[in-house]
Amino acid sequence: MHEIDVVGIGNAIVDVLCQADDRFLDRHGLTKGAMMLVDAEQAGRLYAAMPPGVEISGGSAANTMAGIASIGGSGAFIGKVRDDQLGEVFAHDIRSIGISFMTPPALEGPPTGRCLIMVTPDGQRTMNTLLGAANDLTPDDVNPAVIGAAKVTYLEGYLWDPPAAKAAFRKALEIAHGAGRKVALTLSDSFCVDRHRDEFRALVDQVDIVFANEAEILSLYQVGTFDEALHAVRRAVTLAVLTRSEQGSVILDGDDVHVIGAERGVTVIDTTGAGDLYAAGFLSGLTRGRPLAECGRMGAIAAAEAISHMGARPQADLAALVAEKLG
Amino acid sequence: MHEIDVVGIGNAIVDVLCQADDRFLDRHGLTKGAMMLVDAEQAGRLYAAMPPGVEISGGSAANTMAGIASIGGSGAFIGKVRDDQLGEVFAHDIRSIGISFMTPPALEGPPTGRCLIMVTPDGQRTMNTLLGAANDLTPDDVNPAVIGAAKVTYLEGYLWDPPAAKAAFRKALEIAHGAGRKVALTLSDSFCVDRHRDEFRALVDQVDIVFANEAEILSLYQVGTFDEALHAVRRAVTLAVLTRSEQGSVILDGDDVHVIGAERGVTVIDTTGAGDLYAAGFLSGLTRGRPLAECGRMGAIAAAEAISHMGARPQADLAALVAEKLG
Repeated sequence: MHEIDVVGIGNAIVDVLCQADDRFLDRHGLTKGAMMLVDAEQAGRLYAAMPPGVEISGGSAANTMAGIASIGGSGAFIGKVRDDQLGEVFAHDIRSIGISFMTPPALEGPPTGRCLIMVTPDGQRTMNTLLGAANDLTPDDVNPAVIGAAKVTYLEGYLWDPPAAKAAFRKALEIAHGAGRKVALTLSDSFCVDRHRDEFRALVDQVDIVFANEAEILSLYQVGTFDEALHAVRRAVTLAVLTRSEQGSVILDGDDVHVIGAERGVTVIDTTGAGDLYAAGFLSGLTRGRPLAECGRMGAIAAAEAISHMGARPQADLAALVAEKLG
Repeated sequence: MHEIDVVGIGNAIVDVLCQADDRFLDRHGLTKGAMMLVDAEQAGRLYAAMPPGVEISGGSAANTMAGIASIGGSGAFIGKVRDDQLGEVFAHDIRSIGISFMTPPALEGPPTGRCLIMVTPDGQRTMNTLLGAANDLTPDDVNPAVIGAAKVTYLEGYLWDPPAAKAAFRKALEIAHGAGRKVALTLSDSFCVDRHRDEFRALVDQVDIVFANEAEILSLYQVGTFDEALHAVRRAVTLAVLTRSEQGSVILDGDDVHVIGAERGVTVIDTTGAGDLYAAGFLSGLTRGRPLAECGRMGAIAAAEAISHMGARPQADLAALVAEKLG
């Protein structure tokens, strides 16, 4: 198998995005900005109450792979859909941008996972995920040849929610390291970190690169300030990439610290996918051997595009955007 | 049953929108701006070649009903989906805006209809429709109580493509007229007019209001100039509403002619739904007893909103927009 830049492993999800106001969140007991897991009954009730939606392929690591493809990189995605209409939509959308997606769909069990997303007028997104078929990802779905071929294996923290996926996650980590490849992990969500804190701390010690936002890294180490979190994560992992929304990002490379500004003049429409696309830009730079500060800039440029429209996946040609901005 | 403003009868369709260039249209033999019917095999081939899509509920008359709801009107929709995921999406989206949708889904047969739409950089949309379950609309689906309760029964010309729907169409027309209600028809598409010209001419003689764009009305009467078309349609129908894209619209009310300008300063992103939303604005005014020139302005305002974003259905609050523009 030819070498590829990145293989992403994550929950295969179709997003159902709508515009809703803060009262809608209050009425349904939703925490703004968070990702909450819902069961089929809760999802049905929430969907019935939701305004009209737009269906767009999502999933955190899958969004990152879409960003990497848009910047011109190569990659594969591993995740579980069912053999249903939303599963076809997911598979079409990721394959159509040149990302290899060979995980066989589940032929029985729950339907393809979906995420009901409310976008409030402030551009914040609040996510309610019905994992569905994504629950059925198993170690058998992790193809060693694909992991071995990828410069970076990228794992989303959300995978820690479906129990069987943990084993798939660990298998991928072992194969990648056995092949001398790098493994990156994103912490995904501060509530996800709350649910799995001890295991996440152990994981961070094992991977090579960690992506987290401020709330996630504070939660991971249960500290009150960003400086304390920096101190803790530096001891745990070689390369930590910490995003801080409009305050930009901080890259910790051993003792070296790079502080990267956020893109300016961006009108925030929908923050869905901001972190996913930052990771796409960063990993695109890294797999091309670019300096870390430039990787961070690429992340910031990709994230800025993602938040300028509804939906997580890029709508503009990110390769052109990066070339224009970085000169 | 309470009186409602409008009942729309049409193909229940979920749109799959993507951005594509003119070369894509050429390569696949697509005629820019037209609606082409495709079979399952053609749809599969085209979908496999398409860039990533966004799924948004569509269907011409259904889009019009969404516009009417957004302007604050009341209504119902009659059309056929299957009991599948896209059918649930369609039903959710139209019900969630307050439009009554009681047509039972098909429990067997082809899946919910979909329309593969390529939006080119000039904002034009090119549509490829797999009718699917929409083919199975029958006269039994036309609820006489709903038709009798609606001030206007609105029929889309596209319904002439699925053979069984013609009888449903005719049944609705008879019930509406029997109840002393008005019937409106949109010609939908110039190629659709080509396919059904003789029947469409006979229909225009029977309905009370006709909506058409310039290409459709020229095709209906096989004339070369807009003036000849005006002359022909005036003899056939009491009220004709002719849209001319950026040249605005012309309303023929017997011997009275109202010429309405298009909205200015609109950045065209995607023309999908422009005609559907014009009809929504116009019928909203008409069912409120507004002067025809004002109805035309409401149509122009709704159409301008539709073309300013991807997807046919309104994203802004059209009631607020109309109030702001008309003062």
